[in-house]
Amino acid sequence: MALWGGRFAQETNELMREFSSSIDIDSRLWEVDLKASKAHASMLVEQGVLSAADGKAIASGLDEIASEIQSGLWTFDPKAEDIHGEIEARLFAKIGEAAKRMHTARSRNDQVATDTRLYLKEQIEFLLVELKAVQKVLLDQANSHRETILPGMTHMQHAQPVSLAHHLLAYFWMFERDVSRLKDSLPRLLTSPLGAAALAGTGFPIDRQKTASSLGFASVAPNSLDAVSDRDFVIEFLSTASIGMMHLSRLCEELILWSTPEFNFVEMSDEVTTGSSIMPQKKNPDAAELIRGRVGRVYGALIGALTMMKGLPLAYNRDMQEDKVHLFQGLDCWSACLRLTALMFKNIQWRTDKMQSALAGDFSNATDLADDLVEKGVSFREAHHIVGQIVQRCLHDERWLEEITLDELKTFHLAFDQKTLDKLPHLAVLKARRSEGGSSPEAVTAQIAKAQSALVQI
Amino acid sequence: MALWGGRFAQETNELMREFSSSIDIDSRLWEVDLKASKAHASMLVEQGVLSAADGKAIASGLDEIASEIQSGLWTFDPKAEDIHGEIEARLFAKIGEAAKRMHTARSRNDQVATDTRLYLKEQIEFLLVELKAVQKVLLDQANSHRETILPGMTHMQHAQPVSLAHHLLAYFWMFERDVSRLKDSLPRLLTSPLGAAALAGTGFPIDRQKTASSLGFASVAPNSLDAVSDRDFVIEFLSTASIGMMHLSRLCEELILWSTPEFNFVEMSDEVTTGSSIMPQKKNPDAAELIRGRVGRVYGALIGALTMMKGLPLAYNRDMQEDKVHLFQGLDCWSACLRLTALMFKNIQWRTDKMQSALAGDFSNATDLADDLVEKGVSFREAHHIVGQIVQRCLHDERWLEEITLDELKTFHLAFDQKTLDKLPHLAVLKARRSEGGSSPEAVTAQIAKAQSALVQI
Amino acid sequence: MALWGGRFAQETNELMREFSSSIDIDSRLWEVDLKASKAHASMLVEQGVLSAADGKAIASGLDEIASEIQSGLWTFDPKAEDIHGEIEARLFAKIGEAAKRMHTARSRNDQVATDTRLYLKEQIEFLLVELKAVQKVLLDQANSHRETILPGMTHMQHAQPVSLAHHLLAYFWMFERDVSRLKDSLPRLLTSPLGAAALAGTGFPIDRQKTASSLGFASVAPNSLDAVSDRDFVIEFLSTASIGMMHLSRLCEELILWSTPEFNFVEMSDEVTTGSSIMPQKKNPDAAELIRGRVGRVYGALIGALTMMKGLPLAYNRDMQEDKVHLFQGLDCWSACLRLTALMFKNIQWRTDKMQSALAGDFSNATDLADDLVEKGVSFREAHHIVGQIVQRCLHDERWLEEITLDELKTFHLAFDQKTLDKLPHLAVLKARRSEGGSSPEAVTAQIAKAQSALVQI
Amino acid sequence: MALWGGRFAQETNELMREFSSSIDIDSRLWEVDLKASKAHASMLVEQGVLSAADGKAIASGLDEIASEIQSGLWTFDPKAEDIHGEIEARLFAKIGEAAKRMHTARSRNDQVATDTRLYLKEQIEFLLVELKAVQKVLLDQANSHRETILPGMTHMQHAQPVSLAHHLLAYFWMFERDVSRLKDSLPRLLTSPLGAAALAGTGFPIDRQKTASSLGFASVAPNSLDAVSDRDFVIEFLSTASIGMMHLSRLCEELILWSTPEFNFVEMSDEVTTGSSIMPQKKNPDAAELIRGRVGRVYGALIGALTMMKGLPLAYNRDMQEDKVHLFQGLDCWSACLRLTALMFKNIQWRTDKMQSALAGDFSNATDLADDLVEKGVSFREAHHIVGQIVQRCLHDERWLEEITLDELKTFHLAFDQKTLDKLPHLAVLKARRSEGGSSPEAVTAQIAKAQSALVQI
Repeated sequence: MALWGGRFAQETNELMREFSSSIDIDSRLWEVDLKASKAHASMLVEQGVLSAADGKAIASGLDEIASEIQSGLWTFDPKAEDIHGEIEARLFAKIGEAAKRMHTARSRNDQVATDTRLYLKEQIEFLLVELKAVQKVLLDQANSHRETILPGMTHMQHAQPVSLAHHLLAYFWMFERDVSRLKDSLPRLLTSPLGAAALAGTGFPIDRQKTASSLGFASVAPNSLDAVSDRDFVIEFLSTASIGMMHLSRLCEELILWSTPEFNFVEMSDEVTTGSSIMPQKKNPDAAELIRGRVGRVYGALIGALTMMKGLPLAYNRDMQEDKVHLFQGLDCWSACLRLTALMFKNIQWRTDKMQSALAGDFSNATDLADDLVEKGVSFREAHHIVGQIVQRCLHDERWLEEITLDELKTFHLAFDQKTLDKLPHLAVLKARRSEGGSSPEAVTAQIAKAQSALVQI
Repeated sequence: MALWGGRFAQETNELMREFSSSIDIDSRLWEVDLKASKAHASMLVEQGVLSAADGKAIASGLDEIASEIQSGLWTFDPKAEDIHGEIEARLFAKIGEAAKRMHTARSRNDQVATDTRLYLKEQIEFLLVELKAVQKVLLDQANSHRETILPGMTHMQHAQPVSLAHHLLAYFWMFERDVSRLKDSLPRLLTSPLGAAALAGTGFPIDRQKTASSLGFASVAPNSLDAVSDRDFVIEFLSTASIGMMHLSRLCEELILWSTPEFNFVEMSDEVTTGSSIMPQKKNPDAAELIRGRVGRVYGALIGALTMMKGLPLAYNRDMQEDKVHLFQGLDCWSACLRLTALMFKNIQWRTDKMQSALAGDFSNATDLADDLVEKGVSFREAHHIVGQIVQRCLHDERWLEEITLDELKTFHLAFDQKTLDKLPHLAVLKARRSEGGSSPEAVTAQIAKAQSALVQI
Repeated sequence: MALWGGRFAQETNELMREFSSSIDIDSRLWEVDLKASKAHASMLVEQGVLSAADGKAIASGLDEIASEIQSGLWTFDPKAEDIHGEIEARLFAKIGEAAKRMHTARSRNDQVATDTRLYLKEQIEFLLVELKAVQKVLLDQANSHRETILPGMTHMQHAQPVSLAHHLLAYFWMFERDVSRLKDSLPRLLTSPLGAAALAGTGFPIDRQKTASSLGFASVAPNSLDAVSDRDFVIEFLSTASIGMMHLSRLCEELILWSTPEFNFVEMSDEVTTGSSIMPQKKNPDAAELIRGRVGRVYGALIGALTMMKGLPLAYNRDMQEDKVHLFQGLDCWSACLRLTALMFKNIQWRTDKMQSALAGDFSNATDLADDLVEKGVSFREAHHIVGQIVQRCLHDERWLEEITLDELKTFHLAFDQKTLDKLPHLAVLKARRSEGGSSPEAVTAQIAKAQSALVQI
Repeated sequence: MALWGGRFAQETNELMREFSSSIDIDSRLWEVDLKASKAHASMLVEQGVLSAADGKAIASGLDEIASEIQSGLWTFDPKAEDIHGEIEARLFAKIGEAAKRMHTARSRNDQVATDTRLYLKEQIEFLLVELKAVQKVLLDQANSHRETILPGMTHMQHAQPVSLAHHLLAYFWMFERDVSRLKDSLPRLLTSPLGAAALAGTGFPIDRQKTASSLGFASVAPNSLDAVSDRDFVIEFLSTASIGMMHLSRLCEELILWSTPEFNFVEMSDEVTTGSSIMPQKKNPDAAELIRGRVGRVYGALIGALTMMKGLPLAYNRDMQEDKVHLFQGLDCWSACLRLTALMFKNIQWRTDKMQSALAGDFSNATDLADDLVEKGVSFREAHHIVGQIVQRCLHDERWLEEITLDELKTFHLAFDQKTLDKLPHLAVLKARRSEGGSSPEAVTAQIAKAQSALVQI
């Protein structure tokens, strides 16, 4: 019989019990729940609400429970309503009445919100480590590939040559923004709801600042109604996770493309690919495909949480119990995908020869031929026109632009000279992009230094 | 070592193995997998591709496996890649080489698609039963409440009186559309991919019509590339489930509203409500809140599946493995919510006195006063103006419209007579709405007959 | 001053007026609004609710308004509340009081729902034509390319050769399902809300069957509360449109991929591509990219509509005014993308030589080598092992599988014979896939016949 | 003929032109486009890339164009491709060749990204003002209602009394988080892509820091590939807007509820409500309903943008043109809803008498009766039991808890005394909630001071 059962004539229906139980979801909160309860009880003792004896019994009881769980001596009843009730019942079995007093000046509403915030904070710390691990892998690869040249694409067409370093670093900065968004979310996350009680605060002389600071919160939620019914932090996290997964989906898309025989820019390691029981030639980039596919789970969790909160009046409504389903789906998915991404880059083999040869005759050096004329005083419009004709000629003759001779060039415009020819090799084109953030090895070296210093920031 | 391992020097990484394993998700397909394998093997025998002996060994091996699973004698290895491989390995352990031959002219790609469709078909049959159970409950309640009168709302303002029967029947027809959408989806769902093999069909002389019809499919997928990469049926189901959950969210919203002390139109049974450990007066409509909140899961699953499929080239890509995560999330959620909805209406107590008294003095009979004048030849515009004045007078005097006397009415317009007064009681207003589909008891009786005949249709 | 202004002391605020006006969105409903009003008025005359004279005035007034709009003589006031009020005001200006009587036994609530359904029905008819136009283009192309061979992909890796015809037909069947879903939605869409009035029906002796059938509805909505607040048809359409756009995103993804220099399987026509002002070599598949990008609009509209309806109590709520924003976004987007898709296939140039040469040495014929041994009595497992060794040898020697000689083959297994060699060319591999729905020219011819007959169905 | 037309034999198809044109969407960028072009040209002059004469011509040409647009002298060709090309063409018409040179070392790709970021920055500044305006309105109302008492709800059931001030302030803090998220997004938004050129940077000796700082950017995008293909800022904004709209949907839900006759806690002003042409008694909270409904547009825009970016390879793809559709939909919607929300609170009338009387006999003071016993040394469990019995008695006798006498109380427990009775009035209950962030007038006064100081922060 539940604690609140006094007014009720009938037991909760079994179907209802199952439907409303959340212990399969929230059991992972056990550690933060114990931590928060200890902090709350300790504050109650300091404020004279609980006796020192009660405080001591509670603290050691909670410690014992922690040991039991860690050692596997005690496992949760899968039929329990939730982890909070399950732990309280366990404590009652251990220390009796004092267990009930632990709940003084607190309600399930503020307790759940507190636990979820503490748990998410821990998880964000793990995610930051995982993000930085992926960034580090990219940076290491970039360091070795400043002059590894490949076609830079727009509209999936060869546009201008870039280096593999530059290409990989583009992702470094995406992940850096993910890091930055996670960090920015912390002050909003680390606002303590503890002490908001059911919805209106309490008359007990509690000290919310004390529990907040002992639990690592940065501030105290200023309004008790908001404190128990705010789930912004769940949605904000899922937004950040959705953007982060989108980044991974782009990276994986490229790895999949580059693994096709047509591109063949990369060979993924055996560790993260699978073959076919029928087709002996197959080597499938499964890890990348799975990550790309899993972005749907996180977008879905985001929409799920937004839907849940739409139009809910103040304060706590039971709908909000669903927050953890969405939150954990996003958390688990992003975290696993980050770890797998780092793994994908271990033992990855870049086919730098294929990258190089993909450039041959692709006219991605044509812009530089026009620029050469502009430098020599020809107007941009005329230069573009002349180079257009040269490209047409090459296409007609099935020749590469880089094969053209100076004599031939001069038949198009007399200003062309030996220096012109020096600008046509793709590596020269690459090296010319010296502007800040550009793809020249020089600019990339500066970019890598920036990335290094971003990476070591905590 | 996996079957396809020959080309590979390294083992799959443990993290990768875990990430790509789907047995925790797809183990529930075991029964349809066995069924499909049996049908496939039997066809291969009939077509002379497999020997009769092999066919017999396979069939009895699969039957044995079914018994083992049902009786709990054999449980799946949680580290297995998926249910299909796990079952095949089990069969191999039982009957040796013939187990491998079962896979002739079939690939994992068409096998998975076949199983998922068969499973969904079974589940849709359950859902149809659950939907009809909810419809029946509504219809039963409606039958008893044709003259139970309550405020019909638009913009959440009293508009015109309706009967509780009429109100509940509105939901009956929403669920009827859910039924209808599920049924319409069946021919598209029941298209057999079996025999499409990896992507291009097979050279073995298989008979796809045979397996299709023995498994209860309605047709054979006409294109092998499409057959292995089509997941429309998952998305279509999730769309239907999303609409279905939206219907439930509306119904639950009303039950929650009606449970407030301010409305007090309903008292939910103890079986589906909970109390508070602190506040003895509380009786919370948890079941309705949880269902309303759970709509987010299904919207999320829909977006998840749509995202997964966006921009995927032909044919099978590993991303598609995620289909079952979304599908099962939608299925489980909708099904549980339907069962709980039926339960909510068991022992529900309508506060018909409160419904009635909510109408007193609410002016939802004003329209009928104006209509009376129109019938008596007054133009609509003038009638509306006159009634507006009468309403103003009542508001000023803090009186109800139904308290007005004929003498008073006549001071506004001489055409008012005794019949006018007869039109003012809310029940009279209700009874006047005799148009087809209207809220009069007469029209509702006709509606109930329609609903009855819809309900018994299979 | 609005008609309902009597009770109100203050004018609507200008900001509010702007915010709540929908004429910029709903003005496109003018034609169905006129049509529905005519049908309603005509029924009212037949039922004796309106005089014949009124009926005549209304009918000719509405006809006049139609002419004025078509000829551009009258344009809508952009500050009007909505198209329905704007047309009624225009009619009043023309025929006076009778215009007001047109609204007898009808409310804005059922009127809007009726108009939106009629409009969507018309648009679905256009969409069906556009879908069939795309299907026809695909079918025409398929007809000419039954033996045009290219790599069939799974996991974006060469799996087995398929024909271009077979590949294009996969999309034919996706669009066929779109057609089928649209058709299935019609009976639910074509349910007439007209006569449900504000929410509860009416006391006037109307005949809802009459207006329903004269407007082309298939049935009469059986419950007035549901009739005015049901927006399932909007969501169902947007679901179907989302799936349809997902299909287009897949097709466009492939066209973009195939347009890369690495694949080079296709050259899109100048009509649907653009170049670069800087890079003369660029030819960007913009049309395909834009369509792929636009899938977001339709997914967004779907979520928008689902969100709008979540948790709304009965009956009409003003939130529902947003339905048309989402509906029209989905409609316009899908329709334009279909028309552009048909255009993309006009003058498309397949690089069939590149498709063919992409197959050379790709081992996508290895499966057939193993199958040959199986046919010769070798067990599948041994055959797979032997072929694995042959593939390894070829990879080591950098030779193609199709270059191997019979003598060499015999060193692996003596059963190989001249017939074995005949099976290795990719065209032979293609032709072997003779199962129903397979990629052999024979099976594709049968598939084309099926497609032809699906296409001509109305 | 477009500038890039040289390679193309056919004109762009008319349908394609229409489909790909974005000027109806992006024309609102004209002002930032002019600003960015001026900054770019000025930098080119300083770096010696452009002549001073060219620089001067460009600057004055752009200024002239600004005047023309502001004064309406020049309007955009609705058939133009986009605003950037339209302005460049206008400048060319004014100053000739120099107009072309303005585009040196810049491409459409970095230009569009720069403009969109500048525009969004301006709009965020407007949004911050609008958010603060709503916050101020709430704060003003809160100031006057610290002792206005109403039922605090959980699960939509009376839980404990709160003040109207406390209730409104809950929303103040939600909006404060919106403010905070917008501010946090600025450093990521204010990263200048200008100078990234098409995708790889440029060989011209540009100074990206210079243009960045003259345009108000906080930093320079460190990687050119990322710079032209990053749309995180659009998605991050739409996430923040989605949460913001969710907050508004909750507030509006409550205003709609409170406007029902059953609650009757509020009367919205005539400025933001509408009536009915049929039902003279109606006063519909349309503004609140429309805002609640419009949340769907913003959720939809968020999903639209996330979908667009899923799986896009580097760098710019034409899909990204869709970013502005989603961005502007979110921006316009949130902004209009905020302005309307502020308007709703102007002249709002709180029915404080109804709030007060809703509390009578609702047992939301029962907790305090139990707390009284706990203070007197009774264990919580026994206290809860005793109060449960008292509540039962009252319910049975149909009396209020606050009507009970001391003598009666003493029959339940002798420890009850006069002080007990003093705790039962709802105002006393309110005043007891003195914990930080609680609902007592004292705590709310402190909360208001915090809110005041948050509000004045820039």
